Amino acid sequence: AVAGEGTEGDGEDDESELMEGKAIYMVSDGTGWTAEHSVNAALGQFEHCLVDRICPVNTHLFSGVEDMDRLMEIIKQAAKEGALLLYTLADPDMAEYAKDACKVWGVPSADILRPITEAIATHLDVAPSGLPRGAAGRSAPLSAEYFKRIEAIDFTIKQDDGAKPQNLDRAHIVLVGVSRTGKTPLSIYLAQKGYKVANVPIVMGVDLPKTLFEINQEKIFGLTINPVILQTIRKARAKSLGFGSETRSNYSEMDHVRAELEYANKIFTQNPTWPVIEVTGKAIEETAAVVVRMFVVFSGNMR
Amino acid sequence: AVAGEGTEGDGEDDESELMEGKAIYMVSDGTGWTAEHSVNAALGQFEHCLVDRICPVNTHLFSGVEDMDRLMEIIKQAAKEGALLLYTLADPDMAEYAKDACKVWGVPSADILRPITEAIATHLDVAPSGLPRGAAGRSAPLSAEYFKRIEAIDFTIKQDDGAKPQNLDRAHIVLVGVSRTGKTPLSIYLAQKGYKVANVPIVMGVDLPKTLFEINQEKIFGLTINPVILQTIRKARAKSLGFGSETRSNYSEMDHVRAELEYANKIFTQNPTWPVIEVTGKAIEETAAVVVRMFVVFSGNMR
Ligand SMILES: Nc1ncnc2c1ncn2[C@@H]1O[C@H](COP(=O)(O)O)[C@@H](O)[C@H]1O
Ligand SMILES: Nc1ncnc2c1ncn2[C@@H]1O[C@H](COP(=O)(O)O)[C@@H](O)[C@H]1O
Ligand SMILES: [Mg+2]
Ligand SMILES: [Mg+2]
Repeated sequence: AVAGEGTEGDGEDDESELMEGKAIYMVSDGTGWTAEHSVNAALGQFEHCLVDRICPVNTHLFSGVEDMDRLMEIIKQAAKEGALLLYTLADPDMAEYAKDACKVWGVPSADILRPITEAIATHLDVAPSGLPRGAAGRSAPLSAEYFKRIEAIDFTIKQDDGAKPQNLDRAHIVLVGVSRTGKTPLSIYLAQKGYKVANVPIVMGVDLPKTLFEINQEKIFGLTINPVILQTIRKARAKSLGFGSETRSNYSEMDHVRAELEYANKIFTQNPTWPVIEVTGKAIEETAAVVVRMFVVFSGNMR
Repeated sequence: AVAGEGTEGDGEDDESELMEGKAIYMVSDGTGWTAEHSVNAALGQFEHCLVDRICPVNTHLFSGVEDMDRLMEIIKQAAKEGALLLYTLADPDMAEYAKDACKVWGVPSADILRPITEAIATHLDVAPSGLPRGAAGRSAPLSAEYFKRIEAIDFTIKQDDGAKPQNLDRAHIVLVGVSRTGKTPLSIYLAQKGYKVANVPIVMGVDLPKTLFEINQEKIFGLTINPVILQTIRKARAKSLGFGSETRSNYSEMDHVRAELEYANKIFTQNPTWPVIEVTGKAIEETAAVVVRMFVVFSGNMR
């Protein structure tokens, strides 16, 4: 779930929760995002049954769990609620404790981090530190990568929606497409990965900025989408923006949507070096993966 | 690594790669982000030895691996390069094939997804679909969550850096702090999780917007940072922005930095209901986790 995770089962609504579905507890001594990300991917394998809540599931994220008492509390709560407990705990004693306590309390559990850590330890022939994220002495936040990421995000936000076409040459990746093809969220997602992204909207009757055709064409990507889906998205969008019915009809009416996508496709045909990515039915993460893969192939390597 | 992953070992620079460090291949039938995220977390356990490249590691991400031939190619390449292969493959036949082929070719390997999927399958008493992300019929991209996320990102970008204080009441979370405490990247990270975030800069001599004190105070968070670290960040920032030496000195000079942080702390003292989060030495993910945890506690539940 993107958001909407519950947290910190407070023991008061156990019964309603029980009725609402099976619980999955995710426990981390760090942020919990790794557990969340992996569990979400694994839950993808159960979409056939999660859809319409045929097999309802409630996930609960417990982050920053750094001592045994807190861990024990959560395990007891999991036992009470009949939850599955999935954990990432860097300290091997904590991980061992979680495993043993879960066994004692009859809580099914699995260690998400350990198998990967052990495979890497054997491969590198180095023992893992056992120190959780954020343990003293870590220098990561001030690393070159940290700065690269911050800079990429700053750049990308300022470049959003065609702003500052004079800076297009400084972007690593340039996305081009009509409104609501997901240029902004895709740009932001890529920026989090350290890429400076600019996006340029295609609007009928508005010329694309000249600079777009002057920069390295290998970093430009077109986005396209199925017209029916685009219309659905735009209708939802227009409603949420509270557009008046006149503006709304122009923006989301089928004829207009089709005409605009045709206009975009003409531009893409005129610029055959731009790969055109079909975003229909793809999550942001998936489109981002396609862009990065092509970017790496074109540029020969990474920045 | 935030970015800078290599990819698609092209077989030409095997030897230089061998000399550069041990290889870790990440293979996914989807985007590869799950593998990347988990492996990065696990690599945190080896920071003591990754620092200064005492035990150099090169990670390679192979995403969208959907057929056995491609998988076989990668495994052969891994064998040649002496790589560890970590994979997330939804199709159990593919996963089995990866395991067996790795054994045959002497490639150490581990399945990142399977243990979690199996734990969940047993817990729910439902068989996993075996269908990779993006397999036909998936409706996720048009789900309510998708729209929530897109809207949160749109809102957050438009709100950045104190823009549109009249919209503060529509934010789920409001971040307040001096320049370079990481308000923007933190806002964006939270937006990706579906939260509408506004951030308001504290600048000496500039009044905070009135609306900040009129909205629900429970969603406001202060950010603070160690002055020495802040100065380091600002120096790097001023350099990268190409500030003239005069602007630069005011922005990054120690006296100024200290005075500004003191000014911020005075504001925080005057508003004791705002939790103040120390961001020094924390990765964006960690600060985000703290904010979300408090937000959930304060608001009683999620939006
Ligand atoms: N940089 C790091 N150093 C040490 N351990 C880490 C690092 N990043 C993540 N971890 C560990 O990896 C697991 C997942 O992290 P998180 O995604 O923050 O929950 C936790 O057990 C963390 O302690
Ligand atoms: N929504 C989903 N439906 C089915 N499988 C998924 C879904 N999301 C992720 N996966 C699987 O989880 C693993 C990790 O996904 P990824 O992060 O895209 O590499 C891959 O094997 C994907 O096929
Ligand atoms: Mg975790
Ligand atoms: Mg993956």
